[in-house]
Amino acid sequence: MIPDISPLDDTALHSALQARIDGKTKPLGSLGRLEALAVQIGCILGASSPRLAQPQLVVFAADHGLAAQGISAYPSDVTWQMVENFLAGGAAVSVLARQHGLALTVVDAGVRHDFAPRPGLTLRKIGPGTADALTGPAMSEAQCAAAISAGREVVQALPGNALLLGEMGIGNTSAAALLLARLTGQPIELCAGRGTGLDEAGLARKVRVLRDVLARHALATAPLAALAAFGGFEIAMMSGAVLQAALERRVIVVDGFIASSAVLVASRLQPEVLSRCIFAHCSDEAGHALMLRALDAQPLLTLGLRLGEGSGAALAWPLLESACRLLAEMASFESAGVSRQSDPEPGTAPTR
Amino acid sequence: MIPDISPLDDTALHSALQARIDGKTKPLGSLGRLEALAVQIGCILGASSPRLAQPQLVVFAADHGLAAQGISAYPSDVTWQMVENFLAGGAAVSVLARQHGLALTVVDAGVRHDFAPRPGLTLRKIGPGTADALTGPAMSEAQCAAAISAGREVVQALPGNALLLGEMGIGNTSAAALLLARLTGQPIELCAGRGTGLDEAGLARKVRVLRDVLARHALATAPLAALAAFGGFEIAMMSGAVLQAALERRVIVVDGFIASSAVLVASRLQPEVLSRCIFAHCSDEAGHALMLRALDAQPLLTLGLRLGEGSGAALAWPLLESACRLLAEMASFESAGVSRQSDPEPGTAPTR
Repeated sequence: MIPDISPLDDTALHSALQARIDGKTKPLGSLGRLEALAVQIGCILGASSPRLAQPQLVVFAADHGLAAQGISAYPSDVTWQMVENFLAGGAAVSVLARQHGLALTVVDAGVRHDFAPRPGLTLRKIGPGTADALTGPAMSEAQCAAAISAGREVVQALPGNALLLGEMGIGNTSAAALLLARLTGQPIELCAGRGTGLDEAGLARKVRVLRDVLARHALATAPLAALAAFGGFEIAMMSGAVLQAALERRVIVVDGFIASSAVLVASRLQPEVLSRCIFAHCSDEAGHALMLRALDAQPLLTLGLRLGEGSGAALAWPLLESACRLLAEMASFESAGVSRQSDPEPGTAPTR
Repeated sequence: MIPDISPLDDTALHSALQARIDGKTKPLGSLGRLEALAVQIGCILGASSPRLAQPQLVVFAADHGLAAQGISAYPSDVTWQMVENFLAGGAAVSVLARQHGLALTVVDAGVRHDFAPRPGLTLRKIGPGTADALTGPAMSEAQCAAAISAGREVVQALPGNALLLGEMGIGNTSAAALLLARLTGQPIELCAGRGTGLDEAGLARKVRVLRDVLARHALATAPLAALAAFGGFEIAMMSGAVLQAALERRVIVVDGFIASSAVLVASRLQPEVLSRCIFAHCSDEAGHALMLRALDAQPLLTLGLRLGEGSGAALAWPLLESACRLLAEMASFESAGVSRQSDPEPGTAPTR
């Protein structure tokens, strides 16, 4: 169920990519983060002139039994309503995917609603929402394994070489906070945030509930045990998607807090998945900065987003495109006849 | 020569834009910086459904007499060589402008080189580079006025409703640092940075030279006097472009340290230009963060860029497009049939 993910250890390719960037008509290092991004994409795709092809934005949706405890500002019905909105093209991620030419697929990983089949919707429902983690494990071991396998199969069936992670699930900031707290040992009050918009009292209630859930599952310390205990189906399926995409050496663009929690689980199973991950942004959800530090991840954007859906991944996408285009299309000092830093200029003082 | 720039004081439009965003299918405020961006663009363009049209990226290029003092890591000839590179399509900004459908115009504001006329190049040379600011004013008052007027005329002749500022000029981080120091009173050692790549000794030399230049022009305290004293032609012309674009209510996308220095000068002449400015990024050049604070500006990106050319403005452009598209294309709660935060959900506990 869990594939081996090997390191990207082609040092010759890494050096070649860096040398290619250093030869471009610009001061050394002056493209900042885009330079490391170009090198990383090249190393993932195993190409000195990498091309991103048919990028796939996949939104994994599911419901959470824990939502019955009042840990979200929105009712669970919003999950299926938003799935309809994604498919109708009216959600933020629908708009952004259109803007950037990203193929959008919504996966029903376990929404508490029966969807009519249609294009753009992949039905892989593990169950009608997870069980309430306050009273038992969110899912069984078998359901957890099935979700991870389904995530792998979803990616396997998709074309292209880049996967952008998105999700929808009322209550899923709670599951992500529980995973963060359990897998990193951080206190739950630092991991839990306002989600879609809890007020002060709502947040206090959420923290109390999550503390009880952690106590209820004190023995669920291994990554898969924690995933089964806390859920959700969309996070488990995303973990599978991350493992499969890493195995196939696709570029993985990680969205916000929930998507990062799936990467956290996957990286505890196979640490080398992180070499394939590009972290799109640091969200405004309280635990995300903490999660990114735990993953030693440097996000590209910090725009105060806290929407999920893959919206942050979609917003960061043009930066990945830019990194590849700059590598492919910029002239070198030689080809453009531009003087290098060390070239003397007649009639002026030396610069060093 | 300096037009009056009036405030954008349509509070009804501002409220209408905010209400429209708040009605979209997403938690309140969850699109972070993009929400304020959409409101700002709407207010600049005077439209509740703003559309960005025919964006113009203009690279103002000129040489600096002060470069003879060895304040740059590159020789002055790189200015004209890079202009050729822009026009040939091989520079970073050429690649990024192509990626994002930005019309690219290079303006010879005062390069020490004679260019053959050709498409994409606008010849508005004030002189073959400024004079050495260490020995006298970089330009005369008349030259400064001519540069500002030329910048206004350049913008007037361009179609569209958005202007992205770019520049090229070996030595121009020195001019920008001098303007920052003089117009904000910050010490020169905090304003000056490594530019295109000075080493420690080079930076120390640059700071010494700039301190002498400031002393040489101790009386040049008014914005236009400082601009004439320190240069450069491209900065003066950009200041004129900013004033004209603000007058015409174009969206102005400000690139890095040098472009910001032109905005600083323009804003000291007409403070309301800032209401039309979107700051693309915070560059790695030492003084830029200080400059942005002086302008009370929140940049969109922080990617460690220090290239200039308008590259940061081009990289931020898709975020402006996203802001407008989200406003235009996202469904409302009503149109999509999605439950709002306050809607009760049968059978679950209330969330507040």
